[in-house]
Amino acid sequence: MAKNKLWGGRFEAKTSELMDKFNASLPFDINLMEYDIRGSLAHVKMLGRQDILKAEEVEKITEGLKAVRKDLRAELETGAFDFNEAEDIHSLVESRLTQKIGELGGKLHTGRSRNDQVAVDMRLYLRDQTEQIMEMILKFMQVLLELAEEHIETVMPGYTHLQRAQALTFGHHLLAYYFKMKRDYERFQDALKRINVSPLGSGALAGSSFNLDRDFTAQELGFDRACENSLDGVSDRDFVLEFLSVASNLMLHLSRLSEEVILWNSKEFSFIELADQYTTGSSIMPQKKNPDLAELVRGKTGRVIGSLNQLMLTIKGLPLAYNKDLQEDKEGLFDSVDTVKIILKLYPEMLKTMKVKKEVMKKAASKGFLNATELADFLADKGIPFRQAHQIVGEAVLFAAKKEKELDQLGQAEWEELLAQHIEVEAEVLQKKLSVEAAVNSHATKGGPAFTESKRTIKKEKKFLAEK
Amino acid sequence: MAKNKLWGGRFEAKTSELMDKFNASLPFDINLMEYDIRGSLAHVKMLGRQDILKAEEVEKITEGLKAVRKDLRAELETGAFDFNEAEDIHSLVESRLTQKIGELGGKLHTGRSRNDQVAVDMRLYLRDQTEQIMEMILKFMQVLLELAEEHIETVMPGYTHLQRAQALTFGHHLLAYYFKMKRDYERFQDALKRINVSPLGSGALAGSSFNLDRDFTAQELGFDRACENSLDGVSDRDFVLEFLSVASNLMLHLSRLSEEVILWNSKEFSFIELADQYTTGSSIMPQKKNPDLAELVRGKTGRVIGSLNQLMLTIKGLPLAYNKDLQEDKEGLFDSVDTVKIILKLYPEMLKTMKVKKEVMKKAASKGFLNATELADFLADKGIPFRQAHQIVGEAVLFAAKKEKELDQLGQAEWEELLAQHIEVEAEVLQKKLSVEAAVNSHATKGGPAFTESKRTIKKEKKFLAEK
Amino acid sequence: MAKNKLWGGRFEAKTSELMDKFNASLPFDINLMEYDIRGSLAHVKMLGRQDILKAEEVEKITEGLKAVRKDLRAELETGAFDFNEAEDIHSLVESRLTQKIGELGGKLHTGRSRNDQVAVDMRLYLRDQTEQIMEMILKFMQVLLELAEEHIETVMPGYTHLQRAQALTFGHHLLAYYFKMKRDYERFQDALKRINVSPLGSGALAGSSFNLDRDFTAQELGFDRACENSLDGVSDRDFVLEFLSVASNLMLHLSRLSEEVILWNSKEFSFIELADQYTTGSSIMPQKKNPDLAELVRGKTGRVIGSLNQLMLTIKGLPLAYNKDLQEDKEGLFDSVDTVKIILKLYPEMLKTMKVKKEVMKKAASKGFLNATELADFLADKGIPFRQAHQIVGEAVLFAAKKEKELDQLGQAEWEELLAQHIEVEAEVLQKKLSVEAAVNSHATKGGPAFTESKRTIKKEKKFLAEK
Amino acid sequence: MAKNKLWGGRFEAKTSELMDKFNASLPFDINLMEYDIRGSLAHVKMLGRQDILKAEEVEKITEGLKAVRKDLRAELETGAFDFNEAEDIHSLVESRLTQKIGELGGKLHTGRSRNDQVAVDMRLYLRDQTEQIMEMILKFMQVLLELAEEHIETVMPGYTHLQRAQALTFGHHLLAYYFKMKRDYERFQDALKRINVSPLGSGALAGSSFNLDRDFTAQELGFDRACENSLDGVSDRDFVLEFLSVASNLMLHLSRLSEEVILWNSKEFSFIELADQYTTGSSIMPQKKNPDLAELVRGKTGRVIGSLNQLMLTIKGLPLAYNKDLQEDKEGLFDSVDTVKIILKLYPEMLKTMKVKKEVMKKAASKGFLNATELADFLADKGIPFRQAHQIVGEAVLFAAKKEKELDQLGQAEWEELLAQHIEVEAEVLQKKLSVEAAVNSHATKGGPAFTESKRTIKKEKKFLAEK
Repeated sequence: MAKNKLWGGRFEAKTSELMDKFNASLPFDINLMEYDIRGSLAHVKMLGRQDILKAEEVEKITEGLKAVRKDLRAELETGAFDFNEAEDIHSLVESRLTQKIGELGGKLHTGRSRNDQVAVDMRLYLRDQTEQIMEMILKFMQVLLELAEEHIETVMPGYTHLQRAQALTFGHHLLAYYFKMKRDYERFQDALKRINVSPLGSGALAGSSFNLDRDFTAQELGFDRACENSLDGVSDRDFVLEFLSVASNLMLHLSRLSEEVILWNSKEFSFIELADQYTTGSSIMPQKKNPDLAELVRGKTGRVIGSLNQLMLTIKGLPLAYNKDLQEDKEGLFDSVDTVKIILKLYPEMLKTMKVKKEVMKKAASKGFLNATELADFLADKGIPFRQAHQIVGEAVLFAAKKEKELDQLGQAEWEELLAQHIEVEAEVLQKKLSVEAAVNSHATKGGPAFTESKRTIKKEKKFLAEK
Repeated sequence: MAKNKLWGGRFEAKTSELMDKFNASLPFDINLMEYDIRGSLAHVKMLGRQDILKAEEVEKITEGLKAVRKDLRAELETGAFDFNEAEDIHSLVESRLTQKIGELGGKLHTGRSRNDQVAVDMRLYLRDQTEQIMEMILKFMQVLLELAEEHIETVMPGYTHLQRAQALTFGHHLLAYYFKMKRDYERFQDALKRINVSPLGSGALAGSSFNLDRDFTAQELGFDRACENSLDGVSDRDFVLEFLSVASNLMLHLSRLSEEVILWNSKEFSFIELADQYTTGSSIMPQKKNPDLAELVRGKTGRVIGSLNQLMLTIKGLPLAYNKDLQEDKEGLFDSVDTVKIILKLYPEMLKTMKVKKEVMKKAASKGFLNATELADFLADKGIPFRQAHQIVGEAVLFAAKKEKELDQLGQAEWEELLAQHIEVEAEVLQKKLSVEAAVNSHATKGGPAFTESKRTIKKEKKFLAEK
Repeated sequence: MAKNKLWGGRFEAKTSELMDKFNASLPFDINLMEYDIRGSLAHVKMLGRQDILKAEEVEKITEGLKAVRKDLRAELETGAFDFNEAEDIHSLVESRLTQKIGELGGKLHTGRSRNDQVAVDMRLYLRDQTEQIMEMILKFMQVLLELAEEHIETVMPGYTHLQRAQALTFGHHLLAYYFKMKRDYERFQDALKRINVSPLGSGALAGSSFNLDRDFTAQELGFDRACENSLDGVSDRDFVLEFLSVASNLMLHLSRLSEEVILWNSKEFSFIELADQYTTGSSIMPQKKNPDLAELVRGKTGRVIGSLNQLMLTIKGLPLAYNKDLQEDKEGLFDSVDTVKIILKLYPEMLKTMKVKKEVMKKAASKGFLNATELADFLADKGIPFRQAHQIVGEAVLFAAKKEKELDQLGQAEWEELLAQHIEVEAEVLQKKLSVEAAVNSHATKGGPAFTESKRTIKKEKKFLAEK
Repeated sequence: MAKNKLWGGRFEAKTSELMDKFNASLPFDINLMEYDIRGSLAHVKMLGRQDILKAEEVEKITEGLKAVRKDLRAELETGAFDFNEAEDIHSLVESRLTQKIGELGGKLHTGRSRNDQVAVDMRLYLRDQTEQIMEMILKFMQVLLELAEEHIETVMPGYTHLQRAQALTFGHHLLAYYFKMKRDYERFQDALKRINVSPLGSGALAGSSFNLDRDFTAQELGFDRACENSLDGVSDRDFVLEFLSVASNLMLHLSRLSEEVILWNSKEFSFIELADQYTTGSSIMPQKKNPDLAELVRGKTGRVIGSLNQLMLTIKGLPLAYNKDLQEDKEGLFDSVDTVKIILKLYPEMLKTMKVKKEVMKKAASKGFLNATELADFLADKGIPFRQAHQIVGEAVLFAAKKEKELDQLGQAEWEELLAQHIEVEAEVLQKKLSVEAAVNSHATKGGPAFTESKRTIKKEKKFLAEK
């Protein structure tokens, strides 16, 4: 059966069937059904207010649209819906409407084009999804904050270059991710300002000769305002690109956290143990407990960025206004939205249920000369230029490594051999100074890992979340 | 209901339901069903030959697998299949098998892991698809060649910088695309060498302690050979990347042809008119006939390259051997394969049914000084250094443009004003030399647009295609 | 000669020379010189205030840094600078300082790491560049607005699918780009909020045991605030990603404008003629005048997006905190900044100097049934449902096309044949209604092409720009 | 000073100076100088053979070109070269030539365009570079093979999901990379077939009216053949895309090896220790020894893929033939070539100088139930269906883990508790079977980690390399 279409008067031959299939967008833009009908309801209401349609026409069309929506909801719920019924969601709704209320259905499209209609649908959809995602990010941040609070004093090694660098705390480490996600939240918030603008009334590209009230439909649909140029309104997808850019950034942050979760959960690190609920096994190796969730999140980062890339490629070099290429703005976006949402739901659960092995972490922080900077700072504090202090400590590390000792295991004689020419040495003082807790707590600069500083930060951010 | 899984002995808590959903690959790897069972049939046959399973076990499992395949085919055909039945295609087949033949089904996985199994499935699938695509490219090339032959003498303007540059023929232009696609064909051919290698028997990562005959299963499944390292066999997806790279290149070529089709079909160019079957209309503007197919192909170029990007991002920085991230190798590939195939089917039909407006093309080739190079060559041939000839002709063009004439419309007096100080001028000779057909046919260098040269090329390439 | 380095005490063997070269960043991070020294000046001032250094030490270091800056500026100006002198900009400055003021120079790095230092440099650089780019965008918008005002009544065909769709004006078309760039401006503004945050005092990853005043240095350097977590401060480059995303969006907009400029400037469109100053010629074809600037902008869009892609690939999956991979954040950014800036400078000049061929545009707007929607709207206004009106007009177009007439060239008899069964026909009324100016001016919806509406918009936006 | 240009006759106003800068390619295409002159020498030789130029003209131009080359080499060596001297490398060479030999220099460009000229240059350059890179890959493979041979018996844990999975050897692991690189080698080899084709004589787009012998110049320049279509010859860059795709794949392989090197070199793994020559230190933490080389390689993977992306974006949707956008094909390519080459030089040195800690590796292979599959296979071998055996072993692992024992540490009583209901148990047999060496050596399938199998493979591949 030929698909329902909104055009054809000018055509002598029927579209090729395979072409119809290639061209059709209903299988994915059915996702926009609710938004499409919401847009039509506002449009028809406005047509009535502007005396373009009569009151009773408006009423009949409105009732018809609601009935169509009810039917479609039911068919989608039960799986009875035929995805080949029409060319796209707009044609589907209009042809269903006409089936319900007769030729009057043909008046719905007065002063409107699919070009502005689809732009409206996409913006309504994306506003909804962005708001949901923002809500979920706040909940994720909440979990990070709670975990951070629990681990304010859980000492662990901090890394640079995946080499143990300086001691810090697990709480401090989690706070780093808290702030990364806070920025992602702000970016979505900024993107929303540009998403929430109404293109309705832009027509095919040049507005309409009907006396449409664009401000009214904008308000009716909860948009902040109507767009200022009709050609711009139908031709741009930069609001989709911005969303995908922000989502890509979020995923990049999560890819990094995932890499760490995978490392921490390895036998070699053994800093955490993920719960059975968020790990999986092997079909052949009975001992395996794999961090699949974290791996998938890392892998799916490519997916979201891939969709961003795809759309950039698609849009590059297109002349104004609408080109069919723009139909390719949907699947990647829908997939990215779904991907981000399921991850934001699952990830906090995985974090909340993991077991944190504090003793292993602390032991690791004690091995590997993480206190070398402390020693250098100590010497610098005694007046030795930092660059020279750094040199002295470098040699001390080499000395200790050869003896297979940590710095805080060196004795008075050894310290004297190393430092006597520079300062007066007291091994006991040094040992105290170089203990892992002392080191962490001495790092009390703003944003540092000292217990008190983490406490201050958490208190402040709790307030921020409470006010949201 | 919990999904069927192949592991669990080591687990105390059940996987979270949402996690199950996130983790599951059945909704897309059901595409691999035929290949998965083909791989299992070869595996079990080999287990029999190596006395790892008894002959009657092999027979029962073989019958069971065939029965499972029959069931699944039927369920997929009728839409009765439940995509949530199992974690993945491998678990599905094994659990169905066990339902059919009892505990013996559990012997199928002897000496095998899902890691090598999925690699086998992917390679069988991709071999099949690559061969199909290669076949389709040859048919596309055939169409291009036939069209080129039809238009050996259809003169048109050639462009650089989208400025009319020199006259050539539509046939010559189509041959350019013929050769681009020929290279794409060769690239798929080269990729196939690396796709068609068997990882079966690589196990989870380290082969197996069973005495598997990997060469036998390789041969049984039509592979060129078994891979040389088990860790490599399960960890790499470079054969997918290579396929996607080659497919991206093909799409880039088609994006360029599509840009040209869109230009040629515009009112401004009017070089061709696409058939109704491969164009669509507007929901609001009744006069529109849009080149949607070409636009979609241009747009979907981003889609295929996006999938390449996605997989590169996913694979970057993964340690050996298998990581769950690699599950993300499928959807983008499947989508790219489907996209490329439908395009290769539709595009030649669009080309075959388009109307070529020879007169418009020829007229365009006569306007815009496309013969300026001819004149410069003519002067160079008279001994004036080309650089100086270029300068002289540049000025002649400016002169003619101000008179709103083409070069071949200048008369004796005008030519003398321009050239007398350099050569002896005969307007008649120049007019002949500068006529559009003369210009095209004088370009008889190998690969040039002269009618004879295009004929020679087409004859040679017909032979190439005939031998395929 | 070995490069100057800030470490080495722990090392027994010298770095390989080729490795030194591979590792070095001075050849590109010399771009950060001014910012690096500005950061150091603030750091040392704070060390004094906090009594970590003595007043006279601060003074000497400050003088030394200024002298080093003076030297470097001079060497860079004259080309005397040796890009192999040091490992990176930080090592360069410190070693030069030490050459100037002796061992005291080694105190500069007290309480600081190259990890927070480079993050400070990058943010200072990017704040500067973003502000410059924003300024340039405003100027570009100004030019677009002026041109739009000049062309409020310059009728041209509007396109969808590169098919003539409805008439609009060149002014209206330019306004579309004005608003696209306005959004880009806003995005840079939003990005700036996240760029302008101070990581100074984050140390290597865990802050410092010195009593640093991070709020002071933040304020001293003009940052809005100090970052809240040291690990986050040194490990993230999302501010670079955000900048590159926004720049990519800007470039995509310019790639579309460039595509149009190239089309308009073609012989086939002939809507504009670019000035000699912004076109180039051919080495072989003397008649050519190529729109190179527009082509390069379209091509360089790939360049900026490529740099975004590169950085996303680089960052994906990196564990905290600093990893050497992050050194790859610079070259792509620097190149993108330079690319965007030169384009923003050149492009408005090209637009201002182009010749707009109003008559050609208007004539084009009169051919191709661009008024078909008007006719359908007219019928809809008479009470015929729009869908049916669309059908009727589609047939009318086919009818007229076969007669090689435009709609407004049809006479009373022809109109009657087409419309009599639906409405009472008056050819004269229709001809008036369907004239190109009438059509444009009837599109007076907000953001539409009607002359009055463009005027209103331009007035409003002039005010916006004046207030910036 | 205005740049030297090859055109201008048709232009009335001078190019804007900033435009000149934006447009110029000399700063990077100076890289092509040697290839450009080589191409010109062949072209002029052919012009002589075809009697288009006279013998003495050919001689003078040839001498002139060689003199220009000598000058340029010297200026580049000494740094005296002015990168602003000309618009591009072609203009530079021609204007220098004319300075040397007078107006006759203007004859060099007879029958040629910059469009075919630059395509020749790029292909000559890329052939050279590809051959060098292939040579370097073979050397890298040689190093991997030698290291693998040294570590045939160095037992280490194999990983999936970064969880210890099954024991294998370091030699076996290195062989995996050997085979990955072998495929990369083959891909470069395949790409070379499509790189090594001559576009010379394609002219601007339509060949030439001069009687050029394209086969002669192809042969003279060492190309396999001349391209078959002039329009194709000047418009395509798929040979660059193919090179970048193959290089990206190589980099992805190296990014994975780098991730592993970084992991192995961490305190937590401690499997290797990188030599001082290929690590660097910290400006603040005196104990650090960072694996910078591996990190940079991982990071620069983004760089090469970014260049691939850039070019794909640039080429998408371009109409034939040459467009200025294509000038953007160079910088990314040159950078990728340089990046790949320096990495291929450095990486093997890093591998050769690293210290492999065999004891640590072996110990790690003994912890974490890596022999669980062995036990399951053992049970399967006794006739228990593998799926059931897997279940039993899963429970055994849980049992042992709770006792904090490895499987091979369980005693007779414990084994009986676990297995007695299924098989007859002999703890001694099991302990032997489950020892790490026994496990590795039992994996003697083709491509497996058993010592003998690695030996066989290495012998075969040594032969392969010897024959290259």
